[in-house]
Amino acid sequence: MSRPDPTPKAITSLQNERVKLIRSLEMRKVRRETGLFIAEGASVLMMARDAGWSPKMLAFLAGSAAGGVTKDLVRWAMKADAECLEVSEAVLGKIAAKDNPQSVIGVFEQRWQNPPAATDRAETLWVALEAIRDPGNLGTIIRTTDAVGASGVLLVGQTVDPYSREAVRASMGSVFSVPLARLEPPAFLDLARRWKGAVVGTHLDARTDFRKQTFTQPTLLVMGSEGPGLSDTLKGACTDLVKIPMAGKLDSLNLAVATALILYEARRTRLTL
Amino acid sequence: MSRPDPTPKAITSLQNERVKLIRSLEMRKVRRETGLFIAEGASVLMMARDAGWSPKMLAFLAGSAAGGVTKDLVRWAMKADAECLEVSEAVLGKIAAKDNPQSVIGVFEQRWQNPPAATDRAETLWVALEAIRDPGNLGTIIRTTDAVGASGVLLVGQTVDPYSREAVRASMGSVFSVPLARLEPPAFLDLARRWKGAVVGTHLDARTDFRKQTFTQPTLLVMGSEGPGLSDTLKGACTDLVKIPMAGKLDSLNLAVATALILYEARRTRLTL
Repeated sequence: MSRPDPTPKAITSLQNERVKLIRSLEMRKVRRETGLFIAEGASVLMMARDAGWSPKMLAFLAGSAAGGVTKDLVRWAMKADAECLEVSEAVLGKIAAKDNPQSVIGVFEQRWQNPPAATDRAETLWVALEAIRDPGNLGTIIRTTDAVGASGVLLVGQTVDPYSREAVRASMGSVFSVPLARLEPPAFLDLARRWKGAVVGTHLDARTDFRKQTFTQPTLLVMGSEGPGLSDTLKGACTDLVKIPMAGKLDSLNLAVATALILYEARRTRLTL
Repeated sequence: MSRPDPTPKAITSLQNERVKLIRSLEMRKVRRETGLFIAEGASVLMMARDAGWSPKMLAFLAGSAAGGVTKDLVRWAMKADAECLEVSEAVLGKIAAKDNPQSVIGVFEQRWQNPPAATDRAETLWVALEAIRDPGNLGTIIRTTDAVGASGVLLVGQTVDPYSREAVRASMGSVFSVPLARLEPPAFLDLARRWKGAVVGTHLDARTDFRKQTFTQPTLLVMGSEGPGLSDTLKGACTDLVKIPMAGKLDSLNLAVATALILYEARRTRLTL
């Protein structure tokens, strides 16, 4: 890419190269190759701005930047030398989400943090997700991680992409605030071995009610995949196994719900009104 | 409908009337007019069976009922005089969900319970959802309601349909166990006035940490819509308002997550391993 020109460009053609690029970011392969992702909607983009991010591109509906939030967002993007694309309704219809489409869309560079290091800091609380498959669940977990002020989300093995449209949307912008890291299972096992504190897994076989677990040490909370749950390999790496009690015949909760229950329990004494 | 013949019928035509009916149940209008809905997948259908439901129709992939779970399900359906449709792969492709398609699909009659009555039973815990919009959230809340053994889910005003494909799926079959009722806002306000116990709403303006709320009386938990939250009208009907503390700049959690946190808090002493 040559140095972009931040002056808004009017775009009406679906064949425009920038429009094609934004559309192609629907595909995980393209996101991986370019290291880019899209985030939609004024409220999510304001979260990005407030968290210190800058977009690479900003596309907005022609005529919508005369005032209000969109004007602020365009100013932010121009200050960052982002390409600003003033797009027609037809173009926006092609690049915006089909359900609940937004009139302003940003393109950003993905950020991946180093995996957590073993630490003595008692307030450390990483959420490790093994092979999570549902982007809505992942986005929701990122949002809850933000809400409890936990350290970050660590993706273990083959997982859905936190930078997919659906995950970014479900995170409600928390994807810009929560550190994200990833590890293959062998490296994760190595981290768990070196971890100074508790490696707490949730498992159906556990005999400890999650509300009896103490969270006074640095904690690596390990959640299994939707359906199969925690693999035997990762289960073996845990220092503690906990379970969420349930009434009736159910044996599992939604993964984002289960993660939230444990995160709030871990932060029970720290989070107050 | 004339009395159905439970002997499995082989169906390969997409023009078949039964196939057309099942496909049309994608549409809320048709679900409303017929009072029917679809549930997919062996594990969800087994939840239906175990909860005492019978299907009106059961469609399964040709050749899959020779043994195993599908055989059991077909036997259950035939015993209930349900129409059993042995469908080709092409037909199944048209009636099954596009993502994660299942090879067995049931059609059921919707069940709507009477709205809860004011009661002295301290363990009563209804979840009232005002204008909930996301079917995944609704299904997840039904699942959590089941998991904590709460009384049921009360839909207030214009909400998504708990019998939509996505809500049924997100409920993981709990839609067959959890009583569902619905009320328009005026009737709900009337119920709240007559309620013998606490009407607990969640609201950003609340000053009570949800963990300080006592849940020793019959409780009507009132959750607002995604985004706007509780309306002023319903807020005014609450005896107590609570808030979930959050770190950082976030002001809200995912609705299904927030509901789960409060349900588990309300059941904190009742639910044990």
